[in-house]
Amino acid sequence: MIVCLSSSNLPKLHSSPTSSNQTTPEPHSEPQPQKLKTRSSPQLNHWSRARAIRSGRKLDRPGHRSTNTVVEGNSPVHLQLNDRASLEPEKISDGHDVVEAAKSIYMVSDGTGWTAEHSVNAALGQFEHCLVDRGCAVNTHLFSGIEDLEQLMEIVKQAAKEGAMLVYTLADPSMAESAKKACEIWGIPFTDILGPITEAIASHLGVSPSGLPRGAPGRNVPLSEEYFRRIEAIEFTIKQDDGALPQNLKKADIVLVGVSRTGKTPLSIYLAQKGYKVANVPIVMGVDLPKSLFEVDPEKVFGLTINPLVLQTIRKARAKSLGFSEATRSNYSEMDHVREELEFARSIFAQNPVWPVTEVTGKAIEETAAVILRLYHDRKNRCSMPRIAKRY
Amino acid sequence: MIVCLSSSNLPKLHSSPTSSNQTTPEPHSEPQPQKLKTRSSPQLNHWSRARAIRSGRKLDRPGHRSTNTVVEGNSPVHLQLNDRASLEPEKISDGHDVVEAAKSIYMVSDGTGWTAEHSVNAALGQFEHCLVDRGCAVNTHLFSGIEDLEQLMEIVKQAAKEGAMLVYTLADPSMAESAKKACEIWGIPFTDILGPITEAIASHLGVSPSGLPRGAPGRNVPLSEEYFRRIEAIEFTIKQDDGALPQNLKKADIVLVGVSRTGKTPLSIYLAQKGYKVANVPIVMGVDLPKSLFEVDPEKVFGLTINPLVLQTIRKARAKSLGFSEATRSNYSEMDHVREELEFARSIFAQNPVWPVTEVTGKAIEETAAVILRLYHDRKNRCSMPRIAKRY
Repeated sequence: MIVCLSSSNLPKLHSSPTSSNQTTPEPHSEPQPQKLKTRSSPQLNHWSRARAIRSGRKLDRPGHRSTNTVVEGNSPVHLQLNDRASLEPEKISDGHDVVEAAKSIYMVSDGTGWTAEHSVNAALGQFEHCLVDRGCAVNTHLFSGIEDLEQLMEIVKQAAKEGAMLVYTLADPSMAESAKKACEIWGIPFTDILGPITEAIASHLGVSPSGLPRGAPGRNVPLSEEYFRRIEAIEFTIKQDDGALPQNLKKADIVLVGVSRTGKTPLSIYLAQKGYKVANVPIVMGVDLPKSLFEVDPEKVFGLTINPLVLQTIRKARAKSLGFSEATRSNYSEMDHVREELEFARSIFAQNPVWPVTEVTGKAIEETAAVILRLYHDRKNRCSMPRIAKRY
Repeated sequence: MIVCLSSSNLPKLHSSPTSSNQTTPEPHSEPQPQKLKTRSSPQLNHWSRARAIRSGRKLDRPGHRSTNTVVEGNSPVHLQLNDRASLEPEKISDGHDVVEAAKSIYMVSDGTGWTAEHSVNAALGQFEHCLVDRGCAVNTHLFSGIEDLEQLMEIVKQAAKEGAMLVYTLADPSMAESAKKACEIWGIPFTDILGPITEAIASHLGVSPSGLPRGAPGRNVPLSEEYFRRIEAIEFTIKQDDGALPQNLKKADIVLVGVSRTGKTPLSIYLAQKGYKVANVPIVMGVDLPKSLFEVDPEKVFGLTINPLVLQTIRKARAKSLGFSEATRSNYSEMDHVREELEFARSIFAQNPVWPVTEVTGKAIEETAAVILRLYHDRKNRCSMPRIAKRY
């Protein structure tokens, strides 16, 4: 299994991956659920959370029917697989062989780890040319919620064993310093993701950083207006998906219009997560668009277009996943139909020249989102040096 | 306006923020839509896109009824406001005064800019203690899609004028080097976000980075299995929201259960973006949960709980935004009812001890997501050193 590949210190787990805790004695793994909620000190709470996870399995027995696992934060014991592996278990063993040959990147975080993951993802984008053909296969391993030195050192040692490089986002300066020193001692290539930018901002603001990991007491998320607005935007966007409730189009900040499989839904959701109420309206050949679409401010309506060949590829995959019959599929993904529908869309866009049409071919959702948001705000405001301005 | 605050070189815009291009002559702003699709060289294409945006406004005239704006990528002219400002225009002028006093952070990217935004966001989390009370208000300005030196230098100069610090993610080494040199010459504090991690990975892999900005030819997104899986997950999750289609619970990877306003929907969406099919089922006092919930693998079901006082606060805000009547509101957000419903949920969780219960109080969506995913995978796999493993 990918996740256990480098756990050479875990014969038991390799030989019996589904074994319960009873067969895999580990420190701090004895369940004490009844104490979970009474712990207060971060350190105790920290271990109690570790126990909570372990006890999660053991609770699956009549004797414990009234003691649920209560998780109060990021646990130091944080395990995930990549989407592919988690959704395609059979790929895991297949991955095994490749992993042996692949280079490893260890990411350590005292928080969720998403920042480290995001940065490494972006950097790996610079190596697509050899990643695609697996010329330089890479395995990233994200260890999140790492809040004590003991765990940190265990991970650094493992990185040394594996010949991995280490990338870390550790808010606590002493933890970051320890990671650095350990990497230097063991000759591990390392990069501090959070440190340099935090130090630069600290000297720019003339304020010291808190040094508190995300999720630590004092780092709680306030129930800000923005928090509520984002949730409202997400809920609104879900309800409006795929042309639902056309009478609500006027309430949307952004309205996306395009034929099936131009990515309207994932794009809407991505924008909603950024706080925008988005509605999307499908263009289907021969079907009239809702009257309300032409009654809303045309400056908030955006058309999406795509290359016919790419659209056909996407639709074929879609038709297959939906189990369309040959007949239906041919109509939906047959090239003549695809071209005609795109032409139909083009004619609608031509009749509504205020709607900018964005080409989504070959773009990731977040790229299209960046284009749409730029256009959206460019129509609201003008600058010779446009920028995304945000207040903190 | 926040976006134009620092454009001291823009008297016209300040005096007439809503003026159209006709009143604000700018280089390359004459619309030539008919040429948009014929440009091929990146530089020309680059400017054609700048024109495309400009022409976007001018097309709003009968004379141009058949020429839509076609945007082929990230334009150098990229304008957004923060969600707050964009959704609450009246806050902008209010922000004006604060902005004068606030420190600025310029972020320059040759791509979407989301990586720079994500990293700066994480770093600013270390200054919450003074950001909250605006003791050290910060304005970030993200310039994305910056692909040529001319624009880059214009931005660096503006940063110098504003006394801003510069943060950049520039894939092209010569652009990054130019940014660095210019900052040194003009005495601007700067941080290279992408460079260090990219260099470290390059030497670790023994492969040179492509130096290609995101969205550049050759950086197109392949229609990978993962791409389709994510879209499928998002679409599935939207359809299952709020207890819809209980017969499909078995198809979900993760099922979230909790009372109203425990964040099931935004959490589901966040997880869906990571490729998981999520269904969420609301717990409403006195209402039976769908039978199918007890027929699915209990190891994929997760309960959510929250502090009663916090829940009441959230529900009051919710009730207000939904325009509930006093009567309805009191039932929905009245403390006795809130406590009773949470107690009802607790009893259901107690009857299903395999479901781990996650405390969401004070957690951001992505923090709760990290906890849920850790539990999810911890139940599928075991390691002494758990980690998120991902293949590239």
